[in-house]
Amino acid sequence: MENNWLDQPCAALNETAGLQALERQGQLTKPPGALGQLESVAVILAAMQGAEKPQVDRVQISIFAADHGVAAEGVSAFPQAVTGEMVKNFARGGAAICVLANSLDAKLEVVNLGTVNDPGDLPNVLRAVIAASTANFAVEPAMTKAQLALALQAGRDSVLRAQQASVQLFIGGEMGIANTTSAAAIACALLQESPQLLAGPGTGLDSHGVAHKAEVIARALALHGLSGDEPLDVLRCLGGFEIAALTGAYLAAAQHGMPVLIDGFITTVAAMLAVQINPDVRGWLLFAHTSAEPGHQRVLDALVAKPLLHLGMRLGEGSGAAVAVPLLRLACSLHNEMATFAEAAVSGKI
Amino acid sequence: MENNWLDQPCAALNETAGLQALERQGQLTKPPGALGQLESVAVILAAMQGAEKPQVDRVQISIFAADHGVAAEGVSAFPQAVTGEMVKNFARGGAAICVLANSLDAKLEVVNLGTVNDPGDLPNVLRAVIAASTANFAVEPAMTKAQLALALQAGRDSVLRAQQASVQLFIGGEMGIANTTSAAAIACALLQESPQLLAGPGTGLDSHGVAHKAEVIARALALHGLSGDEPLDVLRCLGGFEIAALTGAYLAAAQHGMPVLIDGFITTVAAMLAVQINPDVRGWLLFAHTSAEPGHQRVLDALVAKPLLHLGMRLGEGSGAAVAVPLLRLACSLHNEMATFAEAAVSGKI
Repeated sequence: MENNWLDQPCAALNETAGLQALERQGQLTKPPGALGQLESVAVILAAMQGAEKPQVDRVQISIFAADHGVAAEGVSAFPQAVTGEMVKNFARGGAAICVLANSLDAKLEVVNLGTVNDPGDLPNVLRAVIAASTANFAVEPAMTKAQLALALQAGRDSVLRAQQASVQLFIGGEMGIANTTSAAAIACALLQESPQLLAGPGTGLDSHGVAHKAEVIARALALHGLSGDEPLDVLRCLGGFEIAALTGAYLAAAQHGMPVLIDGFITTVAAMLAVQINPDVRGWLLFAHTSAEPGHQRVLDALVAKPLLHLGMRLGEGSGAAVAVPLLRLACSLHNEMATFAEAAVSGKI
Repeated sequence: MENNWLDQPCAALNETAGLQALERQGQLTKPPGALGQLESVAVILAAMQGAEKPQVDRVQISIFAADHGVAAEGVSAFPQAVTGEMVKNFARGGAAICVLANSLDAKLEVVNLGTVNDPGDLPNVLRAVIAASTANFAVEPAMTKAQLALALQAGRDSVLRAQQASVQLFIGGEMGIANTTSAAAIACALLQESPQLLAGPGTGLDSHGVAHKAEVIARALALHGLSGDEPLDVLRCLGGFEIAALTGAYLAAAQHGMPVLIDGFITTVAAMLAVQINPDVRGWLLFAHTSAEPGHQRVLDALVAKPLLHLGMRLGEGSGAAVAVPLLRLACSLHNEMATFAEAAVSGKI
């Protein structure tokens, strides 16, 4: 399994379209800047799509599900069986992201990368099983190099499907019991921060549980002795299949010029990995929301990211990104459809 | 003109439906609390609508336009003619709120309460002209008692039309050059705060302009000598026809049991007036966004309000509330359509 594609350059943003969009914003019948972040997001989308009037009608949400060996350390408030059970819930349309995708008329795909409680073949679920779970990174590397390559490629494959379908916005989501432990460990390694700062309650640990989680991460960091400038090693030793798939997806999206909307803590950590692998990825990322998971803000700061929403969400599944989609759509509608001062014969500023 | 209706009691919230909705939230396939404010908003809507599964499909946005005599003091970055010009822009569908209402499939009504630059009869605009503008409150009371009564009633009439149309959510918006000066003056009187704290740039004043605006407000407060516990006097002396209409609309909505989504600075000041007139109004108010207008946070704090959005918007027209409508709709969809742990056979917390 080769990962030569990782080194391909990212697509260039279209600065001309971005400048045209910026000029248009200044002509619309409103005080300059009065639409706040809805203005900047329209301008950024214009530069991404190479169109003065951007659109995000066609949205793909790809959910990557995978189990984590580190769950054996007792770092989650929910049993490991939930990963597979939730894949079934995705298949039947009962999960939050299914309801959101349906409401948004977005294409939802679920990719099963390996669950201990294997749900088998299911409608609406792609099987790309790498192993039943990663290894327990508290005692050994989470993945082999071959597994890492497969997981990165699985994410890229989702983006290639999105490109085939002329998708205008890609959202990645994840499901995997114990994956905030993996994400926090990766963030600690990349940012050289302490686990006490970046380990949080995840799906609902109490303070004792959070302290234990931080201890497990500290042990793993000591074991692997990683430096922050080896993102693929960090990902292989501490990651999950779904986090690697998200990393691969974001890299591929930037390479193919597809705008990405980042969800919460885990996806932002994957985004940080992708940006460390290729800094030009950053230009293709929009950020949807600030999660209630306390480590998220630190990771957002590292990416100089200012999300649109702050609703105290902490569900994963791409749900925070999905909730932000209507804001992107309204930003585009306002940008594309409002009258200019000249068209409406409205007087300008004194 | 009588305003006896102001004393009518507000409708009661349905606590049973609220508790049923709260219980349902705890059964949905997600960690408890993981949807953040989207959970609480669904529960509050359930209590407002008396339904375990609330809905906000049918939305009415009523924009009240009016001119302000205090514009003569040079307190706005835009000329007074813009109020009437924007009413024309509303009629032709070019304003931000028109684009938003169209995108949301919401009913938009524009009520012209009086503009100096009178656009006359227009399609899609209701004429309820009280006078060409209020008087300049820096030198005399803005309104007579009869004008105040007409303006309050105009707002109530909008809510009665919404009720006739079985609207599930009412949004009020405003257009009126100089109306952040009026709103800041009202807030100063009600909260006994200094104009320096509550006067802001509005549509784009520079620091010199903001200082002048604060001086004009200070002069008016000294002239009228109002106390904070006479909201109708405060409104009559310092308000605008559109602010009074919003106040009347919020009172009537609470009396008729219609959920209200509050927009930005000016509408929040109108909400504060309505709550001072009848504290039970507060239970019927949801708050959409925190405006970039610096005084907004202080007024939100006074109402113990935690808005959904913080996008740096400061346009008025009900635009911030309109942008929050998809969040309410998604909150309802998630609440109503997600599978429960039992339905999906997903394991609960350890």
